[in-house]
Amino acid sequence: MRIKVINPNTTQSMTDKIGACARAAARPGTEVIAVSPAMGPVSIESHYDEALATPGLLAEIAAGEAAGVDAYLIACFGDPGLKAARELARGPVLGIAEAAMHAASFIGSRFTVVTTLARTMGQAHHLAEAYGMARFCARVRACELPVLELEDPRSNARARIVDECRRALDEDGCDVLVLGCAGMADLCRSLSEELGVPVIDGVSAGVTLLESLVSLGLKTSKRGELAHPLPKPMTGLMQPFALGLGAR
Amino acid sequence: MRIKVINPNTTQSMTDKIGACARAAARPGTEVIAVSPAMGPVSIESHYDEALATPGLLAEIAAGEAAGVDAYLIACFGDPGLKAARELARGPVLGIAEAAMHAASFIGSRFTVVTTLARTMGQAHHLAEAYGMARFCARVRACELPVLELEDPRSNARARIVDECRRALDEDGCDVLVLGCAGMADLCRSLSEELGVPVIDGVSAGVTLLESLVSLGLKTSKRGELAHPLPKPMTGLMQPFALGLGAR
Amino acid sequence: MRIKVINPNTTQSMTDKIGACARAAARPGTEVIAVSPAMGPVSIESHYDEALATPGLLAEIAAGEAAGVDAYLIACFGDPGLKAARELARGPVLGIAEAAMHAASFIGSRFTVVTTLARTMGQAHHLAEAYGMARFCARVRACELPVLELEDPRSNARARIVDECRRALDEDGCDVLVLGCAGMADLCRSLSEELGVPVIDGVSAGVTLLESLVSLGLKTSKRGELAHPLPKPMTGLMQPFALGLGAR
Amino acid sequence: MRIKVINPNTTQSMTDKIGACARAAARPGTEVIAVSPAMGPVSIESHYDEALATPGLLAEIAAGEAAGVDAYLIACFGDPGLKAARELARGPVLGIAEAAMHAASFIGSRFTVVTTLARTMGQAHHLAEAYGMARFCARVRACELPVLELEDPRSNARARIVDECRRALDEDGCDVLVLGCAGMADLCRSLSEELGVPVIDGVSAGVTLLESLVSLGLKTSKRGELAHPLPKPMTGLMQPFALGLGAR
Amino acid sequence: MRIKVINPNTTQSMTDKIGACARAAARPGTEVIAVSPAMGPVSIESHYDEALATPGLLAEIAAGEAAGVDAYLIACFGDPGLKAARELARGPVLGIAEAAMHAASFIGSRFTVVTTLARTMGQAHHLAEAYGMARFCARVRACELPVLELEDPRSNARARIVDECRRALDEDGCDVLVLGCAGMADLCRSLSEELGVPVIDGVSAGVTLLESLVSLGLKTSKRGELAHPLPKPMTGLMQPFALGLGAR
Amino acid sequence: MRIKVINPNTTQSMTDKIGACARAAARPGTEVIAVSPAMGPVSIESHYDEALATPGLLAEIAAGEAAGVDAYLIACFGDPGLKAARELARGPVLGIAEAAMHAASFIGSRFTVVTTLARTMGQAHHLAEAYGMARFCARVRACELPVLELEDPRSNARARIVDECRRALDEDGCDVLVLGCAGMADLCRSLSEELGVPVIDGVSAGVTLLESLVSLGLKTSKRGELAHPLPKPMTGLMQPFALGLGAR
Repeated sequence: MRIKVINPNTTQSMTDKIGACARAAARPGTEVIAVSPAMGPVSIESHYDEALATPGLLAEIAAGEAAGVDAYLIACFGDPGLKAARELARGPVLGIAEAAMHAASFIGSRFTVVTTLARTMGQAHHLAEAYGMARFCARVRACELPVLELEDPRSNARARIVDECRRALDEDGCDVLVLGCAGMADLCRSLSEELGVPVIDGVSAGVTLLESLVSLGLKTSKRGELAHPLPKPMTGLMQPFALGLGAR
Repeated sequence: MRIKVINPNTTQSMTDKIGACARAAARPGTEVIAVSPAMGPVSIESHYDEALATPGLLAEIAAGEAAGVDAYLIACFGDPGLKAARELARGPVLGIAEAAMHAASFIGSRFTVVTTLARTMGQAHHLAEAYGMARFCARVRACELPVLELEDPRSNARARIVDECRRALDEDGCDVLVLGCAGMADLCRSLSEELGVPVIDGVSAGVTLLESLVSLGLKTSKRGELAHPLPKPMTGLMQPFALGLGAR
Repeated sequence: MRIKVINPNTTQSMTDKIGACARAAARPGTEVIAVSPAMGPVSIESHYDEALATPGLLAEIAAGEAAGVDAYLIACFGDPGLKAARELARGPVLGIAEAAMHAASFIGSRFTVVTTLARTMGQAHHLAEAYGMARFCARVRACELPVLELEDPRSNARARIVDECRRALDEDGCDVLVLGCAGMADLCRSLSEELGVPVIDGVSAGVTLLESLVSLGLKTSKRGELAHPLPKPMTGLMQPFALGLGAR
Repeated sequence: MRIKVINPNTTQSMTDKIGACARAAARPGTEVIAVSPAMGPVSIESHYDEALATPGLLAEIAAGEAAGVDAYLIACFGDPGLKAARELARGPVLGIAEAAMHAASFIGSRFTVVTTLARTMGQAHHLAEAYGMARFCARVRACELPVLELEDPRSNARARIVDECRRALDEDGCDVLVLGCAGMADLCRSLSEELGVPVIDGVSAGVTLLESLVSLGLKTSKRGELAHPLPKPMTGLMQPFALGLGAR
Repeated sequence: MRIKVINPNTTQSMTDKIGACARAAARPGTEVIAVSPAMGPVSIESHYDEALATPGLLAEIAAGEAAGVDAYLIACFGDPGLKAARELARGPVLGIAEAAMHAASFIGSRFTVVTTLARTMGQAHHLAEAYGMARFCARVRACELPVLELEDPRSNARARIVDECRRALDEDGCDVLVLGCAGMADLCRSLSEELGVPVIDGVSAGVTLLESLVSLGLKTSKRGELAHPLPKPMTGLMQPFALGLGAR
Repeated sequence: MRIKVINPNTTQSMTDKIGACARAAARPGTEVIAVSPAMGPVSIESHYDEALATPGLLAEIAAGEAAGVDAYLIACFGDPGLKAARELARGPVLGIAEAAMHAASFIGSRFTVVTTLARTMGQAHHLAEAYGMARFCARVRACELPVLELEDPRSNARARIVDECRRALDEDGCDVLVLGCAGMADLCRSLSEELGVPVIDGVSAGVTLLESLVSLGLKTSKRGELAHPLPKPMTGLMQPFALGLGAR
């Protein structure tokens, strides 16, 4: 099967890392296509960034549909554009926050999310509630790390994440940790070994959950809210996003 | 004061109607600027449409900031881009679903939303919950009217809306009705007279609530989640949305 | 339009202060009538005080109806008698806790309420939940200030409020502050300037929200729970509150 | 022990009926004192009626405290003045809606409330939520019976209540019925026999739950929100309600 | 009436203590039958222990039904097997967590549970939510006391419980304390005197609440979810639990 | 990897069917071990049946641990014993209701559960809430089919299930269907084709989700509530369930 992993920001080094983690998690027969959109912000740290990453993300979904992709993963912890992507896609679409939070609820009682900047904590809480996972979320914590510092090998990003994880285990009554940024995906295994509790990265979790859904033959329901968008004109810069009348 | 009312779709006749309703609701000293974005879908009937309307909406917010606008109203019942708009704006920003639902909670016990297509009902429910208004929402109903039929004087749109409103009053135990589309704004007064209960249009409600907030000197808090977005490069079609380092 | 602001306690100095704040917030064409009831407690610091303030409050609503008042504000943060007042009134009625909490949700992510005595915190939480605003309420804090100390210029009330506000900003993850007593209304602007975040006073917020509702032509729905009370005899001290058969 | 059952309306025939039901439910050693207040509405069918019944109710609590009463039952399904009564009382205080809903949750999965006028349904829902019982409440139904028709032996009140109960069992998926008015207390046993499911009357349930609490030595906590009200002047008609400085 | 109090663990000293507390709380005419099951764990400190205590508990319910017992109390704070027991029993069945939490909600604003091992806190939270009592639960605290240490007079169990209770009063904003283990039942009165707030033990609370329900003639509804289990074969060790076709 | 699928009832024909469905869903390299416990009810249609199925289920978990099984699926829609099983197991454990509901939330907006007997609907609602999936659950419906009729090829079970599914699609506003019994697993694909919407069977969904978790290296957290049960004596019939001191 073919799974397209879309890093909604346009920083290729992060896309490469995400792709490597996704491939490491995938089954032998799964082809992982890791891409960044052709347009959008270099990192996603605000609702504004999310909004402007979404058109490029949707273009990648549309391209994937044309190419017969089986499933999609949105590899940013804010899960931008998830419902719009589901409208476009025949197959299943997951966000990494969604994947990670659900997986956490399967193996523990309560999880803490450790994320980058404090300003993104609200979005993590919002998603936890939207997915029904708020009851399992002990707390959301931030390291005040800008996303792109995770790409800089000279930064002390890992040490700060470890420190915040330890505080979570000491203070939050949690038994699982969730990494709150796709850029942390490569740290997952080593953190789990160091901390002695399950640590969940949404990129690898998402890929394997999508493999499950595809192997079950489950596709996005086209009966109601998630039916294919109605074809209609788009104007200005958004013209390329107009769906043709013969789109489906 | 200057309030910018942004119809996030690009259908000028709807923008004109919205502008007229907004002006009719505004105080004498308020200048209402009603616009459509320079890019985006001609109507908003899906999450996909919302996502592609948002960049154009945000460009209008950014332009409003440069022009010293005091407050903004997002005139589509899905309230697309609301949090991103709040990050950009110094002054307050409201969505019309938000404005209408809050106003309904002030004057009744339970409201029913009467909207256009059934596929948008999920978004109305989602917003009711996000705003804390779900406890006041008796039901969301759809007329299965495409948005642009509201612009066609030969359609029987008003009759179908009246019928659905009557069913709501008969079956839902509601005492207030909320119109679920900016394109219905012009029907509000006459429906209320015909039905004998308060009927709320989010365009006029939103304009007057913004007047309240501006007159109180209340602006969007810049302390946490809604702080101004961090400046960073954008690529491809989204380059024009990059915020300069000197943006704030 | 005429808005009646009812301070449900019978301390005239507080009524005067509330009236001044209400007038400062109102539009030029709005007549603010600020009153205390002719009966009831000198301050409201318990459910018992609220219960005994309510008849006098309702007498003021009834008098306002006879005089053709357009809207009413209940200027005590416990919002006593709100639903009963709505039954009596044709126009809209708001409580200051209700007004302040809704306004806070329009301009920030999470608010903290800073109130007087700790024993009133439960009522603030109760109202936040009843209004759907609990999801926006980070915390309720008390300064352990008796209400009437706010009227004593020699007290250090303002300093204690500032201290508690600072603790809220440090510890609660809030981005907006809500003043939890009508007697704090005069401190709102200066606190906001000193603390650098929006600070909301329900008296001024309530007056302007009522102006919005009145200008929209929105009145309390008379279809269900909030219909005018049925006329019936009252006995003993409550005889004056009997509604005549010809009342409506 | 001595339990004071306060019918908050001033219709003596209803008080007599309530007293008889309370005495029939009480243990041999319990003295039931059934009273109506000296002031207030003849029936309670609105928030306005509740508000004006509350001072008389509180006077009865205060008199009970002076007389050494052990516990109090508020015998109106709106549970008016419950928290204020708890502040005044040393012993426990229950409302009949509270008692009935909790008892229902002990013996079934979901209950339906059958009440008098539809306009009071909102209050029943509000109480179910405030007590945490909303999850057990399948539905609230009204017979559109004015309260005092329950006192008229020529009315067909019982037949209408039976009809509504049968509809509840057919349509609501409930397994317990709760009577939504103290004036229905005498019907409880015969309805249960006729309908073949548990039917709960809050008057008898409340008396026996209070007996439980008193026998356990449990009194209203005076540590926080429910501490005795602070002594302070009351003005006008409310002067008799001022609590002396030596009150406690 | 006859009330059977089942300590679901098989430690007789604890059963004796529970029986003594139950008898001390019961009315003169009530016969309390305190038993341990003939099979199961010596203490209950995990979901595993609960699961293995439940068959023995249900055998005691079945034996009670044969003997005409009127009501049952499950005397372990995890309330194991409660719904299954309700299916078997004609009369009412309560768990001690259920009884204690409801009683706490009658006499205060918010309670803290003080329990034994931290690993059981999740179950206490789960029950608070299932009973609708989560809104009254300020916090659940553990002393890290194994259950059977409560049976050892040389342990310092009481001192550790007192310490945790004091921390609860200092930090949690609670006004009532709930003891989180049947083995603490004998400490209830003395803790309440020492701490100056109501302290609730579910054993005595449960017995008196059951007396209330029995005296009201209320039995478990047999209409839906709690109807008697269908007769069917059981295999292996569970053969003795097969309900005969003539069981009811 | 080795996944043990435990049908908690003791009807071998159902275990065979479940095993076949599980194997059909599993990846090539996965060994599915499908078993019934050596003790317990022949079908599970009540809380009583669930309670008596649980010891046998736990014995199978313990045997699986001794044999080095990687993950477990509890193949009964009531998910009996799930938390106790998680305490025993090193690897992940899922219930089929849990698996099906989560999968449904990934591919649609709202699901309806179609189950066997109406008396089990309460448990389905309870699980939906416990898993955070209640917001996605449009309704639970029953066909009033006893579980073992699903095993009888001459019954009209499939027709009745199809009818109920069609009613769900017509009336519930759902876009996904969830089969509410492991005995329906073999119908999943054909129902989905016939009805034109995704239909989810928890057996196949659960197997593939477990494959995901195992391939991610995620195991049940042993830090808190789900730590291995403490070793302790068990008495009577439960003696074989005592965990030795050297158990872990």
